Amino acid sequence: MTLRDKTAIVGIGMTDYTRNSGRTVEALALEAAKAAVADAGLKTADIDGLVTYGLGDTISTNVLATDLGLARVRHYADYNAGGNMAAGVVTHAAMAVASGMADCVLVYRALNGASGMRYGGEAFAEMLSRTSVHSDAEGQFLAPLGITMPAQEFALMCQRHMIRYGTTHEQLGTVATICRENAQANPQAQMHGRPMSLDDYLDAPWIAEPFRIYDCCLMTDGACALIVTGAERARDLARAPAYVMAGVTGAGPANRGLMWGNYWDDHASSYAAHIKDDLYAMAGVGPADIDLAQLYDCFSYSVIAQLEDYGFCAKGEGGPFVEAGGIRLDGEIPVNTGGGLLSEGYIHGLNGVVELVGQLRGDGGGRQVAGAEIGMATAGGASPNGGAVILRN
Amino acid sequence: MTLRDKTAIVGIGMTDYTRNSGRTVEALALEAAKAAVADAGLKTADIDGLVTYGLGDTISTNVLATDLGLARVRHYADYNAGGNMAAGVVTHAAMAVASGMADCVLVYRALNGASGMRYGGEAFAEMLSRTSVHSDAEGQFLAPLGITMPAQEFALMCQRHMIRYGTTHEQLGTVATICRENAQANPQAQMHGRPMSLDDYLDAPWIAEPFRIYDCCLMTDGACALIVTGAERARDLARAPAYVMAGVTGAGPANRGLMWGNYWDDHASSYAAHIKDDLYAMAGVGPADIDLAQLYDCFSYSVIAQLEDYGFCAKGEGGPFVEAGGIRLDGEIPVNTGGGLLSEGYIHGLNGVVELVGQLRGDGGGRQVAGAEIGMATAGGASPNGGAVILRN
Repeated sequence: MTLRDKTAIVGIGMTDYTRNSGRTVEALALEAAKAAVADAGLKTADIDGLVTYGLGDTISTNVLATDLGLARVRHYADYNAGGNMAAGVVTHAAMAVASGMADCVLVYRALNGASGMRYGGEAFAEMLSRTSVHSDAEGQFLAPLGITMPAQEFALMCQRHMIRYGTTHEQLGTVATICRENAQANPQAQMHGRPMSLDDYLDAPWIAEPFRIYDCCLMTDGACALIVTGAERARDLARAPAYVMAGVTGAGPANRGLMWGNYWDDHASSYAAHIKDDLYAMAGVGPADIDLAQLYDCFSYSVIAQLEDYGFCAKGEGGPFVEAGGIRLDGEIPVNTGGGLLSEGYIHGLNGVVELVGQLRGDGGGRQVAGAEIGMATAGGASPNGGAVILRN
Repeated sequence: MTLRDKTAIVGIGMTDYTRNSGRTVEALALEAAKAAVADAGLKTADIDGLVTYGLGDTISTNVLATDLGLARVRHYADYNAGGNMAAGVVTHAAMAVASGMADCVLVYRALNGASGMRYGGEAFAEMLSRTSVHSDAEGQFLAPLGITMPAQEFALMCQRHMIRYGTTHEQLGTVATICRENAQANPQAQMHGRPMSLDDYLDAPWIAEPFRIYDCCLMTDGACALIVTGAERARDLARAPAYVMAGVTGAGPANRGLMWGNYWDDHASSYAAHIKDDLYAMAGVGPADIDLAQLYDCFSYSVIAQLEDYGFCAKGEGGPFVEAGGIRLDGEIPVNTGGGLLSEGYIHGLNGVVELVGQLRGDGGGRQVAGAEIGMATAGGASPNGGAVILRN
């Protein structure tokens, strides 16, 4: 059997996305969870499964279950994972529901990513070294070179892509400005009300060349949540279901760490090249059938890599594709319609799934993609491992 | 659909279990993984999924996949979890295979739990506070009372059980001595060749009253691994399959942390009371059908709590049941036939699943349970959350 169309996302919820919540991660998670339950027209007691992920900075499922007052949890999963699992948690929930493990699974991510632990610098490096044995092994070679944060690692991948395919700074900037433009129609976005031109982008300081500050995702305090249930039950609930057509979480070779992706035969490709066949086969559709995509944009370059590796354009053509407007709301494949991680907020990628569900419901307002029926949300940037889900209305 | 009989464990592997491996966690994981592949009669390249769990002290799936030279990983999961997930990772693999996510899933746990990070004391408390938001919340109330390690928390649950039901020190000791006796027939066991009498037990020093040192699980360097594949493919492989009849990972109310289990209405019960109905329903069997059980024995008391809560005896009768020999190899329900976490080693519970598979194959040697056809392996001690699998040959 496959997961295709067996389950659906029936509720979404979120807190404000800010630079300083002034609240605990636990309080944020609880607010988003309750909002998702209310959105679905469910009762809290209907929740019998919980899934989350994070790098020691989320709130674990046992705590949230207790806060929700659940008398029994029939299934739970706490992933030790970065953004590569932002779609995988939805896939997990779909597997759990399809296998009869639970009926209504709450998927959530909460963090104080701006006012609390930020993803970069000493505290982040130290946390990684304590939570993942692999980072010790990788870090001993990278730290002496001064490489201690993701922006530096992705910058090297991006440089390789620029050298090999001629990708330009302006093309990277176009990803960033299109995300920013979409955010202007999204009141939830941190960058709502703060438009940005390509000149603004080009005038901004380097973080790690070729990345300027606007190539890098935001730091965000906030939480979002969604609820997965069986396709049959979904039809009787308050909102139009977003059916899970497919979900895959996988990797290519040389998957040891971010930098190891550089040792692939095709050095400028990502996890997406290695999971896309499974993903499209499960969904029974191809890239031409996808109406919009929320591509995990930890960095602007990640969008270009994934456009190519999911087959929305040919390998090496991501830059020109973006420059020609291919990812605009009225383009060939509208991308990151809510502003993405670059301009909506960094809820570690799960906010991309939430935005996709909103679009499939037709709730996109000024950023609605006309005729949005099938959409993709991805997780993993240009890294060697990651995942994606394909949803339809 | 349910998972019942859709998948099977077809290979098991392990390193030596020692106090000082002198090797990296990565090397241990790799050895166990290769042993499991060889045991199954598979090729390494057949592995297309990986699952592990730990508290920052295992090796992550992306590293092991790279070490194994896998060209592609179709599914992976890294759980941030303690022993409560030791059965859940098998359930996860079964879900992944049954959903068509992967064909051959490698499940493993590796740690240097004796020579590396030990589960107790300052380093452990600090690690927990960095990897789990919940521990911060719980820890602020417990640490001022001097409660910083699991033995102290389980000791309080055990005390309550003793007060309420009259459970005795000798009954706790009988759990420990039966595990030790079983270990004498298990060359893999750390306590092989080191028999222990009830007097030895009673003479031992307190760790946290009512726990003496022999009530507490071992600290172990080592790794074990197993491979889950589809039931059909399983029939063509080298070894007799151990079919997964059921797997459930769940919790009861007041599931916030170990100590919160004390706030349940029934203060002396465990997660098992809350998952057993789902578990037995999925398997289509009841406790009377189970021929042997590997009960997660982080502490001796955990065996007594689970015997009751899985229905092997009435609530409160676990102590007398043990004293009457009910868990001996020739008893009503043989328990921890390889010595368990108390006397085989502490591979965080996954070694219990491995031992169960060996028993179902009839490979138990001097500790073989006669007529072992259906067995259970559990995860979670007396804690508020946990899981179990039921396997058959």
